Amino acid sequence: MKFVIQRDQLMNSVQDVMKAISSRTTIPILSGIKIEVSYEGIKLTGSDSDISIESFIPVEENGVIYVEQIEPGSIVLQAKYFPEIVRKLPQKTVEMESDTNLQVTIRSGSAEFHLNGLDADEYPQLPQLHTENSFEIPSDLLKGLIKQTVFAVSTIETRPILTGVNMSIEDGSLSFVATDSHRLASRKIPLQSEESLPQISSVVVPGRSLNELNKIIEDSQDSIEISVTENQILFRTQHVFFLSRLLDGNYPETSRLIPEQSKTIVYSPTKELLQAIDRASLLAKESRNNVVRFQTKDGNQVEISSNSPEVGKVEEEITAKSIEGEELKISFSAKYMMDALKAIDSDQVKIEFTGAMRPFIIRPMDNDQILQLILPVRTY
Amino acid sequence: MKFVIQRDQLMNSVQDVMKAISSRTTIPILSGIKIEVSYEGIKLTGSDSDISIESFIPVEENGVIYVEQIEPGSIVLQAKYFPEIVRKLPQKTVEMESDTNLQVTIRSGSAEFHLNGLDADEYPQLPQLHTENSFEIPSDLLKGLIKQTVFAVSTIETRPILTGVNMSIEDGSLSFVATDSHRLASRKIPLQSEESLPQISSVVVPGRSLNELNKIIEDSQDSIEISVTENQILFRTQHVFFLSRLLDGNYPETSRLIPEQSKTIVYSPTKELLQAIDRASLLAKESRNNVVRFQTKDGNQVEISSNSPEVGKVEEEITAKSIEGEELKISFSAKYMMDALKAIDSDQVKIEFTGAMRPFIIRPMDNDQILQLILPVRTY
Repeated sequence: MKFVIQRDQLMNSVQDVMKAISSRTTIPILSGIKIEVSYEGIKLTGSDSDISIESFIPVEENGVIYVEQIEPGSIVLQAKYFPEIVRKLPQKTVEMESDTNLQVTIRSGSAEFHLNGLDADEYPQLPQLHTENSFEIPSDLLKGLIKQTVFAVSTIETRPILTGVNMSIEDGSLSFVATDSHRLASRKIPLQSEESLPQISSVVVPGRSLNELNKIIEDSQDSIEISVTENQILFRTQHVFFLSRLLDGNYPETSRLIPEQSKTIVYSPTKELLQAIDRASLLAKESRNNVVRFQTKDGNQVEISSNSPEVGKVEEEITAKSIEGEELKISFSAKYMMDALKAIDSDQVKIEFTGAMRPFIIRPMDNDQILQLILPVRTY
Repeated sequence: MKFVIQRDQLMNSVQDVMKAISSRTTIPILSGIKIEVSYEGIKLTGSDSDISIESFIPVEENGVIYVEQIEPGSIVLQAKYFPEIVRKLPQKTVEMESDTNLQVTIRSGSAEFHLNGLDADEYPQLPQLHTENSFEIPSDLLKGLIKQTVFAVSTIETRPILTGVNMSIEDGSLSFVATDSHRLASRKIPLQSEESLPQISSVVVPGRSLNELNKIIEDSQDSIEISVTENQILFRTQHVFFLSRLLDGNYPETSRLIPEQSKTIVYSPTKELLQAIDRASLLAKESRNNVVRFQTKDGNQVEISSNSPEVGKVEEEITAKSIEGEELKISFSAKYMMDALKAIDSDQVKIEFTGAMRPFIIRPMDNDQILQLILPVRTY
């Protein structure tokens, strides 16, 4: 195996596949990066067996040469050392070469590393996905879907299915739903496609997989192809394959959690509300489990307050755009409310309450694609 | 107590005094910030009894009004909450007011905080320094002295005196020396003064104090006044007093550690040497305790190398400007060498060796003010 490569290209691909590699793996060879060299280019692979990432560097793209002097072959290098070495190499090009004893030489300028490699034949084969269940969406839209929902997954393992995001396609719409049973975040978007869309009733993608995927994909309008089988999901961009296992089990039916009618509706500027809750939460952090009070007042005023006997209290009135329906006093987690408001990409929000003890809904004022639901806390 | 203040001024002063406040203090009132209001301005104080910092906000400076509506008084507020509150206040001005029950109201825009204060009379009095032992230096020069020496203090408490930097003034020169007994960093500068300088034979300032001081003082040519008593040192800028206790005990005589003659002298470009050692250290981090080898070769070449049986090896040759004297093979801690090279603010360094088992000296090529000394490691 031998090749000469542009260091920046190699570094980008190494950083991508590193997202899948865990230092705590129980399978020793998975602590390494697999490097496969062909006349088409260099393929890097990282995996922790839940997530596998392949990143391909073509020999040439748009007339720019990335890889030269190719002798095909493959090797596995320890992920603990290889990325730092690449990052700190002195020159823009890197030569890598392996011998029959799995010794790898990395040369750049006058620096020369000799690393002990591992046999690439011992690296597990990634499953090949054969499925018709594929569709495409722009990567910036996928990033939006992830960011607006994944924060609401459960972080505790008592109900493992809730650590994932429920993805489904129905009637030409793609929806993401996440809940930790105290709050729920969902987003639905219409898919534009010239081909017929697959029906995906419900697959549950681990939250961690989506967080790592979000770090890798670019904020661009390039398409990402998503393919689903019974227990795997593959996200494919031009040069990156991101494969994740799916979570086993049935995702709870969440639609019945969402109240269909409301008693109080508050229309509020998003940023002012977010900042007032942020301030009120400063005193609530410890003694009150981060709970703030929200109370409607005359003249479209909303009072946000919090009280911590040892530290003090805080109160602030903000002016809502309008308040409809009954008066309301309610308490909720400042953190959940701030997460929800941050996920809403709109200047104004519509908040629908059905009384102090019922879940309430936050939506952008001008569309129904995003829905955030929060269970209140009993304090009054 | 009452005043209206510019939030940015208040925030800066709060951040300064926070550097002295420890959340793990055994004296409860020292977990607070003392606020003293007079017709001259607002004085904030933070202390952990080792370090005390006072920051003063004048009523007016250069024609800009910082504080208005003053009613003198004082209070102590919990440092755990107050800084975040100030940082997140919605408006540029802040009104603070306390009542006879030690309740403090903070108003900014429509936000209103009520905090439980503590009695300022219970806050310990800072010692008043009465001393003639004062001198001034520009703050950027003081920052340089700190950065070039303080990293070499000991971080373990077996010899407490080595956790400080030894400061002395002799013959019109100020010198800082730090050593952890494996390496030594020192810098000496001539003091320019129209008045007669004090003689300070040796005071030992805790490394932590200098690190915190370095965060507070600006990189400017404004003067800092330094005053020393038997057990305290005071650094004074226009609006900040930084008071630290001194370490008890005798600092070891370090001048005799410094070899007076050398057998090999290497003149090398600083950055190339630093980067080559950084790369060589990548494989040395764990298995070899961060030790790299340094070997002179023909033609002004220096080989930097490292070898870790499990991982691999690395070698690199750099071209020295010149090599004088005997051939040399030596091993040393990559971390110590990198710390030393980073502290030297010069393109070229002069390294003087007295054999593989003796301490060696690194200096900027063009001046003798900075001296870094490292003890080698026995490997050959």
